[in-house]
Amino acid sequence: MTASSSTPDADRLARVALARITEPGHVRLLDLVSDSGAETVHAGLLEHPDVGPRLAAVEPERELAAAARSGLRFVVPGDDEWPPVLDDLRTAEPVQERGGVPIGLWVRGPVRLDEVGGSLAVVGARNASTYGTDLAADLAATVGQAGRAIVSGAAFGIDFAAHRGAVAVGVPTVAVLACGADRAYPVAHEQLISHIASEGAVVSETVPGGAPMRVRFLSRNRIIAALSAGTVVVEAALRSGALNTANWAGRLNRTVMGMPGPVTSAHSAGVHQLIRTGAATLVTSGEEALELLGASGEHVLDLPRGKDRPRDGLSHLQRQVLDAVPVARGAPTVSVAHVAGLPAEEVHATLLALEIRGMVEMTDDGWRLAALAHD
Amino acid sequence: MTASSSTPDADRLARVALARITEPGHVRLLDLVSDSGAETVHAGLLEHPDVGPRLAAVEPERELAAAARSGLRFVVPGDDEWPPVLDDLRTAEPVQERGGVPIGLWVRGPVRLDEVGGSLAVVGARNASTYGTDLAADLAATVGQAGRAIVSGAAFGIDFAAHRGAVAVGVPTVAVLACGADRAYPVAHEQLISHIASEGAVVSETVPGGAPMRVRFLSRNRIIAALSAGTVVVEAALRSGALNTANWAGRLNRTVMGMPGPVTSAHSAGVHQLIRTGAATLVTSGEEALELLGASGEHVLDLPRGKDRPRDGLSHLQRQVLDAVPVARGAPTVSVAHVAGLPAEEVHATLLALEIRGMVEMTDDGWRLAALAHD
Repeated sequence: MTASSSTPDADRLARVALARITEPGHVRLLDLVSDSGAETVHAGLLEHPDVGPRLAAVEPERELAAAARSGLRFVVPGDDEWPPVLDDLRTAEPVQERGGVPIGLWVRGPVRLDEVGGSLAVVGARNASTYGTDLAADLAATVGQAGRAIVSGAAFGIDFAAHRGAVAVGVPTVAVLACGADRAYPVAHEQLISHIASEGAVVSETVPGGAPMRVRFLSRNRIIAALSAGTVVVEAALRSGALNTANWAGRLNRTVMGMPGPVTSAHSAGVHQLIRTGAATLVTSGEEALELLGASGEHVLDLPRGKDRPRDGLSHLQRQVLDAVPVARGAPTVSVAHVAGLPAEEVHATLLALEIRGMVEMTDDGWRLAALAHD
Repeated sequence: MTASSSTPDADRLARVALARITEPGHVRLLDLVSDSGAETVHAGLLEHPDVGPRLAAVEPERELAAAARSGLRFVVPGDDEWPPVLDDLRTAEPVQERGGVPIGLWVRGPVRLDEVGGSLAVVGARNASTYGTDLAADLAATVGQAGRAIVSGAAFGIDFAAHRGAVAVGVPTVAVLACGADRAYPVAHEQLISHIASEGAVVSETVPGGAPMRVRFLSRNRIIAALSAGTVVVEAALRSGALNTANWAGRLNRTVMGMPGPVTSAHSAGVHQLIRTGAATLVTSGEEALELLGASGEHVLDLPRGKDRPRDGLSHLQRQVLDAVPVARGAPTVSVAHVAGLPAEEVHATLLALEIRGMVEMTDDGWRLAALAHD
């Protein structure tokens, strides 16, 4: 039997069965499925002395029916809901031997995966500071309100703050879990995760009922990166898992961003390393993240200018004269004229105009910059 | 008369006279001097109806003699002390109409300008936070102790902290002023500047006695950037003058670095902008700055030093112990030993030897650096 002769349902059932006997991000198996089709791989593995009996014991129709009762759907390549961005995983280099296009994703919630392609992933330290969680919530709210969904991993710290920031402004948010999409991990976030399941989407490559394990977190991170147009890391210590997500985002040619913090904070050391090595671009706000995400010139910001200064309203001549007025002790008009390289009469008239504007003042020694003009 | 037929002295006198009638960074005049020689330009300007009489009135021998009485020397291209790195200014694009190789630099202090080529410029906000000033002082101390002089502008805030950090560990530091090198601006830093004049170098393109003016600050910034192998900006608001120095460093192909801070701090907004736009590389420590400076591989010199200091006569072990003695409140021997990473008995014996030399003193809290050892 070849993949091309199969009905979509047979492909889906083969994927359900394969998902049950393998681990998320098992790159060799996933590449095989991408290359040869799920049914071919399924048929081949049925002959395998070790795996065959386990595979034969799976009842994919029952799994799908049970999942549906838990509100889960299984989204696979070829489905309308399948986001083409996930196919980028096919050619990306594995990280720690995990990689590949997932066999399928279990999804719970009203938001469709094909509608979150321009989303932003916000990830970072579980052990975050309030500086970091405040930033993450603000960032998620700003970017969400601009029409982009927020993707994160529902973990403590930055992840929680990012989902919360999106939820607070009524913006779709997607939680990609390392455990089954019917479970809640961490348990303390059960309420958040069930809220996301009712308003956004809870997603997992791990089969329903599956427990969270380290290998599943690593595989999960690539899904977060692949589902999003860009990833922002907000606080991450050196060797934080969030750097793994950023690494994936870079491999997938997504926009990788980092929000800096005090260099004295270990919470920011991993982010600073990403920026320093050029793996991430520094952003300080949601507006800057939007600018980097924006294709075709949307959300392109002016460079921040700082507030207007009194100097801004001056003529070229007035600035020339002002630049020649001493900061400390005053100087006579002729001396200012000399420095400015302008006729003394012209300088005198200009100084009087500047005095009226409060930019210069007359002292016993002559003209001096007023405090207003120092910046 | 052509430049090639002149003696060095005639060239120097022509430069003294030209410096008196022009402003620092007057790019057209400076380019003319670079192209045709100071004597040719001097002779030409003597014929000029406006400038000629003023130029003729200058008495350069008297200026030089008066400057020498104030401890100033005039360093010009061709002098042994002239740092070739300044010649990079010849081809750099002007900024705000200022630029060019200075006609000469007035210098006060034992450190020679040709010995500071591998130095680091540390610049930033006058209105800095303690976060910024602490970072700047640490950075200057770390980079200074690795054998690179610290260049800054003696201003309030980051500049002051950088000089102070270098002075605290006995490392040569160079203050480039916008006023004459015989003056002190800001006046509150008179003591710092006179200390630098006795241990490092106070440098200015502005003639002796010249007052600080905006145009001179802008010109001064290019000298700071040109004298150094790299510039680090530590805290700078948007539109801070430190960004002008960073701009110059970039134009001169020097290493431009920025230390990030909280994105919630306006003090760091200018630095973040530099990093975000790729104009500066993020660094979080002196070690990282050294790594970037080292990568350029240029101008790396032995530790430039001023006059001999008490530290100079110490053994390696003694210095190791001394480096572990606190500056402010005292610490017990075991604590010094812990920091130094040496056995307590050895440290105890060494501390006693250092006490005899007057380098450390015993307080109620334990060992502390004596004033003698601060430089």
